[in-house]
Amino acid sequence: MGRQKVYLDKLARFFQIRHLLLRQALAECLGTLILVMFGCGAVAQLVLSDGSHGMFLTVNFAFGFAATLGILVCGQVSGGHLNPAVTFALCLLGRERWRKFPMYFLFQTIGAFFGAAIIFGMYYDALWDRPGCFSVSGANSTAGIFATYPGKHLTIVNGFFDQIIGTAALIVCILAIVDPYNNPIPQGLEAFTVGFVVLVIGLSMGFNSGYAVNPARDLGPRLFTAMAGWGVEVFTARGGWFLVPICAPFLGAIIGVMIYQLMVGFHVEGEVRDQKSTEQENVRLTNVSANDNPKGATKEMH
Amino acid sequence: MGRQKVYLDKLARFFQIRHLLLRQALAECLGTLILVMFGCGAVAQLVLSDGSHGMFLTVNFAFGFAATLGILVCGQVSGGHLNPAVTFALCLLGRERWRKFPMYFLFQTIGAFFGAAIIFGMYYDALWDRPGCFSVSGANSTAGIFATYPGKHLTIVNGFFDQIIGTAALIVCILAIVDPYNNPIPQGLEAFTVGFVVLVIGLSMGFNSGYAVNPARDLGPRLFTAMAGWGVEVFTARGGWFLVPICAPFLGAIIGVMIYQLMVGFHVEGEVRDQKSTEQENVRLTNVSANDNPKGATKEMH
Amino acid sequence: MGRQKVYLDKLARFFQIRHLLLRQALAECLGTLILVMFGCGAVAQLVLSDGSHGMFLTVNFAFGFAATLGILVCGQVSGGHLNPAVTFALCLLGRERWRKFPMYFLFQTIGAFFGAAIIFGMYYDALWDRPGCFSVSGANSTAGIFATYPGKHLTIVNGFFDQIIGTAALIVCILAIVDPYNNPIPQGLEAFTVGFVVLVIGLSMGFNSGYAVNPARDLGPRLFTAMAGWGVEVFTARGGWFLVPICAPFLGAIIGVMIYQLMVGFHVEGEVRDQKSTEQENVRLTNVSANDNPKGATKEMH
Amino acid sequence: MGRQKVYLDKLARFFQIRHLLLRQALAECLGTLILVMFGCGAVAQLVLSDGSHGMFLTVNFAFGFAATLGILVCGQVSGGHLNPAVTFALCLLGRERWRKFPMYFLFQTIGAFFGAAIIFGMYYDALWDRPGCFSVSGANSTAGIFATYPGKHLTIVNGFFDQIIGTAALIVCILAIVDPYNNPIPQGLEAFTVGFVVLVIGLSMGFNSGYAVNPARDLGPRLFTAMAGWGVEVFTARGGWFLVPICAPFLGAIIGVMIYQLMVGFHVEGEVRDQKSTEQENVRLTNVSANDNPKGATKEMH
Repeated sequence: MGRQKVYLDKLARFFQIRHLLLRQALAECLGTLILVMFGCGAVAQLVLSDGSHGMFLTVNFAFGFAATLGILVCGQVSGGHLNPAVTFALCLLGRERWRKFPMYFLFQTIGAFFGAAIIFGMYYDALWDRPGCFSVSGANSTAGIFATYPGKHLTIVNGFFDQIIGTAALIVCILAIVDPYNNPIPQGLEAFTVGFVVLVIGLSMGFNSGYAVNPARDLGPRLFTAMAGWGVEVFTARGGWFLVPICAPFLGAIIGVMIYQLMVGFHVEGEVRDQKSTEQENVRLTNVSANDNPKGATKEMH
Repeated sequence: MGRQKVYLDKLARFFQIRHLLLRQALAECLGTLILVMFGCGAVAQLVLSDGSHGMFLTVNFAFGFAATLGILVCGQVSGGHLNPAVTFALCLLGRERWRKFPMYFLFQTIGAFFGAAIIFGMYYDALWDRPGCFSVSGANSTAGIFATYPGKHLTIVNGFFDQIIGTAALIVCILAIVDPYNNPIPQGLEAFTVGFVVLVIGLSMGFNSGYAVNPARDLGPRLFTAMAGWGVEVFTARGGWFLVPICAPFLGAIIGVMIYQLMVGFHVEGEVRDQKSTEQENVRLTNVSANDNPKGATKEMH
Repeated sequence: MGRQKVYLDKLARFFQIRHLLLRQALAECLGTLILVMFGCGAVAQLVLSDGSHGMFLTVNFAFGFAATLGILVCGQVSGGHLNPAVTFALCLLGRERWRKFPMYFLFQTIGAFFGAAIIFGMYYDALWDRPGCFSVSGANSTAGIFATYPGKHLTIVNGFFDQIIGTAALIVCILAIVDPYNNPIPQGLEAFTVGFVVLVIGLSMGFNSGYAVNPARDLGPRLFTAMAGWGVEVFTARGGWFLVPICAPFLGAIIGVMIYQLMVGFHVEGEVRDQKSTEQENVRLTNVSANDNPKGATKEMH
Repeated sequence: MGRQKVYLDKLARFFQIRHLLLRQALAECLGTLILVMFGCGAVAQLVLSDGSHGMFLTVNFAFGFAATLGILVCGQVSGGHLNPAVTFALCLLGRERWRKFPMYFLFQTIGAFFGAAIIFGMYYDALWDRPGCFSVSGANSTAGIFATYPGKHLTIVNGFFDQIIGTAALIVCILAIVDPYNNPIPQGLEAFTVGFVVLVIGLSMGFNSGYAVNPARDLGPRLFTAMAGWGVEVFTARGGWFLVPICAPFLGAIIGVMIYQLMVGFHVEGEVRDQKSTEQENVRLTNVSANDNPKGATKEMH
C-alpha cells in the first residue's frame, strides 16, 4: 500500500496543471462531454431501437440528469456551466470575467465533440445495422442523434424564436438558483435543480427542434457528424439551420438576464444593499452614542 | 470589468422597486408565468405532436417541476404561492394579510396570461400546421392546451366536486409542508416537495378535467385563448365550465384548511403552546426558588 | 387581522386533542388517507381512461410519492408508518410500544377506507360511464382500482410468498433508513427515501398481485367496495384472496426484521455499544491516572 | 416491554460479528442482493407481463433507485460499492485496501445470486405460465431477466467497447461524487446521486447489451440461471459473451480512473496540497516572527 501511495503521489504531482483557466477549461470540457455523451446516447438508444428501449421522455430525463452529473463532475473547479450561453449570461452580470468566455466556449465544444464520438463508437454496430443510416434527412436518418434539426412544420423565424425562448427560460431559472441575493436552495443541490430545469425544458419545449438551447452541445456533435460520414449536409440542411442553435441562445441569454433582473434580481439585490446601508448608519449612530457616554458604559460593566 | 460593474450598479439602482407589495406581486407574476409556460408547453407538445413527443405523464412531470421552478424563482420574495387558492388558505390561517389576496390573484392571472402567450408564440407554426386547430371542441381542438375543459363523462356537479377535492388535497399537503409547528423537511426543499404534490395530483386526479386546482392558472390562459383566436366559446363551452376552476378551488381551500387543522394542525400547535406555558411556569418557579436563597447561589459562584 | 387571530386561537384551543395516542392515531389516519387517495386515484385514472391518462408506471410513481406525502403530513406526530406491517416491525424491535399497534392498525384502515371513498366520489361519473363496472372480475371490472386481486397466473401459495417478499424488502429498506445506529441520510429526507422504496417495489414486484404489502391499504378500500356496490364478492373472489394481503405482510415484517438485523443491524448496534464501553473504560482509566498525580496536572496548568 | 428489551439485547450480543471485513462483506452482500432483486425484478415484470406492467424506462428507474437503496442499506458499514469494478477503482486510487477486493467480489456475487433467486421464487408461477420459458434464446426466452445478453446487432468487439465505456462513465461520475478534494454534494446524498448515475447509464447506454457494467451483478444471476433450469447455455451463448461483462468493467474502471484523475482529480488534489504547504509555510513564518519578539506579543496580551 505504501509503495502505491508514493507512486500515486508522483503521478499526481507530474500531471497537476497549475494554470487556473486551463484547469477550469479542462473540467468544463469533461462536464460537457458527460452531458452530450449521456444526452445524445439516449437519443441514439431511442432512434436505433425504434422506440423499444426509449421514448422522448427518456431523452428528457437523460439530458436533465446528464446536466446534473456534468455539473457535479466539474462544478467545484469551473462552475459547471456546460453551455456558452450560461457563461455569457454570467459574464453579462459581471459574475465571471469576459476572458473566460472564449476559452469555455472552445473547450465546451471540444467536450461535446468527444461526447458525440464516444456515442458513435458505442453504437457503431447498431448504426451500420440500419440501412441508409448516414443520411441527414429521410425516415432512417440518424444525424438527429447528434445535432438538432427542425421539425417539418417549423419555419426558420419560429425556430429562432423557439431557441430564444428556451434559452431565456433556462437562464431565468439558473439565475434564480445561483443568485447570491436570492439563494432558495441548500448548497450542493444546485446541480440537481439545474437538471430539473433542463428536464422541464425538454418536456415542454422539445417538439419544435429538440431544445438545443446550447451552442456547444449542438456545434460539437455537428462537427463530429460532418467528419464521421454524414458530410457537409449537416451544415447545409434546412437552409443553414445550424446557425440558429449557435446564435439564438446568446440572444435568449440577454433576454433571460433582463427578465430575471427586472422582475426579481434588481429588487432583492437592492433590498440587501438598503439593509446594509441602514446597518452601517445604525453602527455609526451607535458608536456616536456609545462615545457620548463612555463612562456610563464602563460603569455598567463593573 | 470595473466599468461594467458601475454600469450594472446604476441599472440596478434605476430599476429597483421599493414598494414591497408591488415587488412581491411582480415576483408572483414571474413565478406563475414559469408554471404556466412549462406546464401548458408540455400539453402543447403532447397535443401537437400527437403523442410522439409526450404523454399524460410528461404533462404531470412538467406541471410538477414547473411549480418547483416557479417557487424557486419567486419564493424568497413573495412566498411562491403561484395559486390564489394557496394565498386564500394562508390568509384564512392568518399567515398572510388579506390585502395581499386581490393583488396576488391579479398578478398571478397576468403571469398565467403571458405564460400562455409565450407558448402560443413558440408553437405558432405547429398550431397552424393542424387543420381546424382554433376550435374549442372536436378532435383537432387545441383550446385544451391552455385552459382546462371537462371530459365527456363529467357532469358539472362531479366536476365541481373534483376541483374541490383536488384543491383540498393540495392545500392539506402544502399546509403540512409550511406549518411552522410541524416542519418535516429541511429548509430549501419546500419547493421540491410542492412540486411532488402537484405531480401526484396530476397522476391521480387528472382524468376528469385536467386538474386546474388553481383559478389563476386556468383564467389567465383562457382569457388569452379568447383573445388569440379561439373566441368567446372558451367561456361558453360546456355550460359555463370556466366558472368551476375559478370558484371550486376556494371552497376546496377552506375544506383543506379545516381537515389539516382538525386532524393535525391544532394539535401540534397546541402542544407547542402547552410546552411554552409549562416552560414559563418552570422559569417563574426557578426564579422564585433562586431568589429564595440568593446567597447560596452567590457562594457557589465564588 | 387582530380579530381573526383571536378567533383562530379560540378554535385551536377548542379542537385541540390532548390525548397523545388519539392524536397520533388521527394523524396516522390522515396520512393513510392521503396514501390511498393518491395511490388508488392513479389506478382509477389508469383503468377508467383505458390507459390514455396513465400506465403502470404512473401508478408506481403515485403510490411512491403518495407515501412520501402521507409521511410528511403525519410523520412529526405519529412517526408516519401508514402501514400496520411497519408498526409491527417497529414494535418487534422495541422501538414502539405494543399498545400502539391495534390503535394504529384501526385508524390506518379507517384512513384507507375514506381515501377510497374520496376517489369513488371523484370518479363517480367515470365509473358509471363504464358498462358493467361494479363487477369484481371480467374485462370491465373496477374492483381492482381499490383493493388488490391476484393475476390469473398466480396461485395462492406463490401469492403468499410474493406478499412476504415484498413486505420483507420494504421492511429491510425502512429499517436501514430509520436505524438510529446506521443513519445514512440527512434528517428530513426519510419520507422521500421511503417513497423511493415504495416506488421501486412497485416497479419490480407489482406484476403478480399489485403489491399491497400493507394490510390497512388493502382492507380499508376492500371494505369500502363491499359497501359501495361491488358486494361480498370482493371477499370471496379467488378463494378468499383478501386474507393474503392481511396476513402475509406481518410474516414478511418478521422476516425483514430478521434479515436486516442479522446482516447489518446487530453489528452496527454492537459496534456503537463496544465503542461506548471502551470510552467509559478510558474515562475511568483517565480519571484514575489523573487522580494518581493531581499535583503534576495542576503544575502544568500554571 | 422490559423483558422484550432484555431478550433483544441478548440476541444482538449473540449474533454480533466482530470481524470487520466479514461484517463489511455481509453488508455488501445484502446491498447487492437488494440491487439485483429490485433490478432483475423490474426486468422480470417487463418481460413476463409482455410490457403491460413495465417498459425499458421502468427497468432503468428500478436499477437506479435499487442502487440507491442498496447503498443506503450497507453504505455506512461497507461503503456501498455493490460492484467489484467500483471496489477495484477505489483500490487503484489507494482509498481501499487491496485485500478487500476478492472478499467484496465474492460476497457481491453471492448477494446477486440470492437476489436473482428471490425474483425466481417470486415470479415462479408467471415463469411457468410462459411456454418454453426456460430457454436462453428465442422469442419467449427469459434468461435475459437475470443476466445480460447482447443484442442481435452487436459484435463481441463492440460489446466489449460498450461495457468499457459504460463502466468508465460510471466510475468517472462516482469518483467525482466521492472525491474527498471535490465534494460537490451534501453528505448523505451520495447514494441518491449514484442512483441517478445508474439511471442515466441505463437511459443512454442500455440498448446494446443491457448495461451490466458490474461483474457481480451479471455473474451471480447467471450462475443462478445455470443451476435453476436454463442450463450451461447461459455460459456458451453468443460465443462466451458471459466473459465480457466480467472482464470489460475492470478495464473500464482503469480508464475511468485515468480520465477523472487527469482532467479533474489531480488538479483539485494538487490545489489542496499547495494550499496546505503555503499555510504551513505561513505558520512557520508566523512562529518565527512571533518568536522574534515574544515580549511585544506578551505586552499586547496584558
